[in-house]
Amino acid sequence: MKMRIAIAILACMTGRAQQAGSQEPQFTKDGKLMPPKDYREWVFVSSGLGMTYGPLAQGATAEHPRFENVFVNPRAYKAFLDTGAWPDKTMFILEVRNSKSNGSINKAGQYQEEIVGVQAEVKDEARFPGKWGFFRFPQSGEPAAMLPVTETCYACHSKNGAVDNTFVQFYPTLSPIAKAKGTFKASEK
Amino acid sequence: MKMRIAIAILACMTGRAQQAGSQEPQFTKDGKLMPPKDYREWVFVSSGLGMTYGPLAQGATAEHPRFENVFVNPRAYKAFLDTGAWPDKTMFILEVRNSKSNGSINKAGQYQEEIVGVQAEVKDEARFPGKWGFFRFPQSGEPAAMLPVTETCYACHSKNGAVDNTFVQFYPTLSPIAKAKGTFKASEK
Repeated sequence: MKMRIAIAILACMTGRAQQAGSQEPQFTKDGKLMPPKDYREWVFVSSGLGMTYGPLAQGATAEHPRFENVFVNPRAYKAFLDTGAWPDKTMFILEVRNSKSNGSINKAGQYQEEIVGVQAEVKDEARFPGKWGFFRFPQSGEPAAMLPVTETCYACHSKNGAVDNTFVQFYPTLSPIAKAKGTFKASEK
Repeated sequence: MKMRIAIAILACMTGRAQQAGSQEPQFTKDGKLMPPKDYREWVFVSSGLGMTYGPLAQGATAEHPRFENVFVNPRAYKAFLDTGAWPDKTMFILEVRNSKSNGSINKAGQYQEEIVGVQAEVKDEARFPGKWGFFRFPQSGEPAAMLPVTETCYACHSKNGAVDNTFVQFYPTLSPIAKAKGTFKASEK
């Protein structure tokens, strides 16, 4: 009987652990970040089109600006709803896509097309000297080494992010929470 | 002992049932659709900007086009990944937001601002004569009655949707799945 209880509880816990596990940053033994397979099932926080601060804006043109979709792992999102702050092991995915117009029944405006790049920002206080690390995944699907801290993303996020190292000022459902919880930087209000 | 097994299993199942329940369409006794509270935690399928077929395009201007974010309930999304088709009780949310430019460090391009409207498309084969129903939620947060089948959304989705009654041609991660599974309408290819 004890065995059956143990099995029932274990089955329950295992299911949850696997779910959580796939939503957390995973590193290789040599410290590279694994590209998460299921980030499209994470929580979408917002998208922008043709934003000039964008790290992949260079390849875009005025006619074909690029969309940037931002996703965050669900556990970190739920913690943010409660606290207005990002917990350790928060992981953002920035997915960049080309835009298209005048296809199917669409005559004007832009919709999303093929993927151009995927980047990540991870909070890991023990692993990164500045608490946050940035990554650019190669199109091959290989793990990515942390970008050098001399890349502009580090200084820009640190200086201009409205909450911690992140651009919550561009995430319309999260800004009001951070303002209510007092975690939104006054300089960005 | 049997009681303890039952409690362990019940606790496990209840947790899952509550999760699933909040992701399914819920109707009032008089057949109105309840606005889902947690659709921002559903699966994001894509967004567009200033798309002229958009049902709320009227209030937009060339300077301030509107974003449309589309979310689908996770159970239906997972079924689509397996089959390329939408199961009964699929629910889409179309969230329309104003756009803004030149705020914070942003100098060009558009990012998302306040919400303008929320609409839903629900598949319920027993409830709706054409299998799908459309809904426009009032800003008050009240439930919404089904829009009359004379509204243009019905004919347009039925005629132009690439998969069943839906615009999968504008959802870049779902189009390849539908094409591979043979559910993508040839006329939209």
